[in-house]
Amino acid sequence: MAMDVLREARRLEQAGRRIVHMELGEPGAPAPVLVRKAAEEALRSGNIGYGEALGDFTLRSRIARHYAEHYGVDLPADRIIVTTGSSGAFLLAFICGFDAGARIGVVQPGYPAYANILDALGLSCAPIFVGAETGFSPTAEIIEAAHRRERFEGLLLMSPANPTGAMIPPPELEKICRFCDSAGIVLISDEIYHRLEYVGRAETALRYAQNAIVVNSFSKYYAMTGWRLGWIVAPPGMTRSLERLQQSLAICAPTLSQKAALAAFDATEELEAIKSGYAKSRELLLRRLPQMGVTRFAPPDAAFYVYADVSHLTQDSKKLCDDILQEAGVALTPGVDFDRARGAATLRISYAGPAEEVALGLERLADWLARSG
Amino acid sequence: MAMDVLREARRLEQAGRRIVHMELGEPGAPAPVLVRKAAEEALRSGNIGYGEALGDFTLRSRIARHYAEHYGVDLPADRIIVTTGSSGAFLLAFICGFDAGARIGVVQPGYPAYANILDALGLSCAPIFVGAETGFSPTAEIIEAAHRRERFEGLLLMSPANPTGAMIPPPELEKICRFCDSAGIVLISDEIYHRLEYVGRAETALRYAQNAIVVNSFSKYYAMTGWRLGWIVAPPGMTRSLERLQQSLAICAPTLSQKAALAAFDATEELEAIKSGYAKSRELLLRRLPQMGVTRFAPPDAAFYVYADVSHLTQDSKKLCDDILQEAGVALTPGVDFDRARGAATLRISYAGPAEEVALGLERLADWLARSG
Repeated sequence: MAMDVLREARRLEQAGRRIVHMELGEPGAPAPVLVRKAAEEALRSGNIGYGEALGDFTLRSRIARHYAEHYGVDLPADRIIVTTGSSGAFLLAFICGFDAGARIGVVQPGYPAYANILDALGLSCAPIFVGAETGFSPTAEIIEAAHRRERFEGLLLMSPANPTGAMIPPPELEKICRFCDSAGIVLISDEIYHRLEYVGRAETALRYAQNAIVVNSFSKYYAMTGWRLGWIVAPPGMTRSLERLQQSLAICAPTLSQKAALAAFDATEELEAIKSGYAKSRELLLRRLPQMGVTRFAPPDAAFYVYADVSHLTQDSKKLCDDILQEAGVALTPGVDFDRARGAATLRISYAGPAEEVALGLERLADWLARSG
Repeated sequence: MAMDVLREARRLEQAGRRIVHMELGEPGAPAPVLVRKAAEEALRSGNIGYGEALGDFTLRSRIARHYAEHYGVDLPADRIIVTTGSSGAFLLAFICGFDAGARIGVVQPGYPAYANILDALGLSCAPIFVGAETGFSPTAEIIEAAHRRERFEGLLLMSPANPTGAMIPPPELEKICRFCDSAGIVLISDEIYHRLEYVGRAETALRYAQNAIVVNSFSKYYAMTGWRLGWIVAPPGMTRSLERLQQSLAICAPTLSQKAALAAFDATEELEAIKSGYAKSRELLLRRLPQMGVTRFAPPDAAFYVYADVSHLTQDSKKLCDDILQEAGVALTPGVDFDRARGAATLRISYAGPAEEVALGLERLADWLARSG
């Protein structure tokens, strides 16, 4: 549905309208200068051939070092597999981690592609609903209860989460990890919004879980969406299976992106400047939204989304988003994308775009709400 | 197994040995200058964001034009989907084209990843053996007979083929296509070695089949392996399903590669020069191999491989390849990679590398054979 919104927004733009994009989960900033320079150098060397299935060893080692530096977690580079975005990582993780027909617990609201990937691979999805009561994060209690109701072999967690921006508090994450290990549940921890926290700090599941498959990406914090590069941290012993699968399913992740991504870890200054732009946009949202009557949203701890309850305005947020796009020229994503059961009364506002755009979008939204109120 | 050969070759190189690589299905030449320049320009523009799931429309249109110019086949750009290499194309084609449990006819000897991808997706593989009798190409008769023995819902054809270099003659391809259409078999035509013909000219299945899914790639003729870019030509009506699937499984093909690949169609002069290098290497192989006693091989019509029968030397070509690597410093691929049943008496020689390397490899091979004969 986000894609339909984008398509309609582009159509309006082609017809001459000025649209503010607050529907995209994509940094408005380009990849860091150092990353682009590294890519240019690689291009001049001429050699952009096939790489190893597991990924370039220098990059894998650099990612391993990142775990030591950022989380204080020691990992051998051998457990890192470089993938074609987190998309390519999920594909490998699901195929490698589960037999056909396996059931995976998936938190709702959540990233809509999960269910589609599971479905394409003949796996099934056990939805685990979270809401305002727990700050839109799952707790060990909720997960244990869901598992009692309907056993699942795997659990897919995303913290910080899309669409909510909510983060599982580390002590709770620890409890969930321990439960998964004790119940023999394969935990897949989607950590692609790590380093984009504004309140507290995200902890990696690697710290607590023995058997977690951790997925991460260069798309969000590192602002490298179109480069299609991510990684897996595999549990000990799984690397060889992942390597064979990657060899067959992808050959290797894009080589030029791998060469460029190595520089991403040196671009912290530029990346933190981008992040401080998000932080300013977030402050603005938190100040302006309540003034517009939008007061209930998930705790926007991290990432670059506000997931807002708009039940006081509509029970059909798809229509609301359509109206706002047509009449106010602001593109937003209706909640049904993330939560089929309850999303008709919610919408997602992304503040990943340039700060001026976010500010303009908010003013248009305020005007529109004032007019239609 | 090709990967094990490569690994051992790299190990020997690290130990100071000079190894000639004739095991790789990868052009020795870098991507064309125009392609690399286009990538540099795209990098300077800064914007390497997510693209549309179906691929950049300009590139899709250019690919459609290629079908008109090269094959005289008119296609709407709407039927082209840009993918993450042909690997990404197969994944989409298999998931979109078949229900779980479906059986796909796969020609042997053939590309080993096919069976692995099918297996990972819960599909099964019905091997169709071809041999010297038909020049290592399948005929309509062979395929019909195989289908009578063991029905299959899909057929995977590669012409020109890896590992043989053999090409299905266009009249035979036409018969196969008509049989598939009449029997309701979904034909997946792997055309990644097109434009690398030395004898005759490959014809696209699109000319003959109503329902073929055609897969192609920028990796071989266009020398863009590490860029991970390919495409599908979908049968009419399948685009929307492929788009949804691509959106979930990959989001989009690498953006920078897409921007660069547009220039590949203007690089014909450079690409034909690379191809004429292969042609020279091929001539050398065809002259030298018989002098070494290697006289039986598949018709090397196209691609950059010679698939040779070495049953006069061994019934264990894996060991033969090991010995040649260790003693002669030439890396070759044992036939079992491509044909589990009969490959122990064959090996694949790739001449995709630089012409001097191919020449050196052949001299080393001749010496080794003379010594060990």
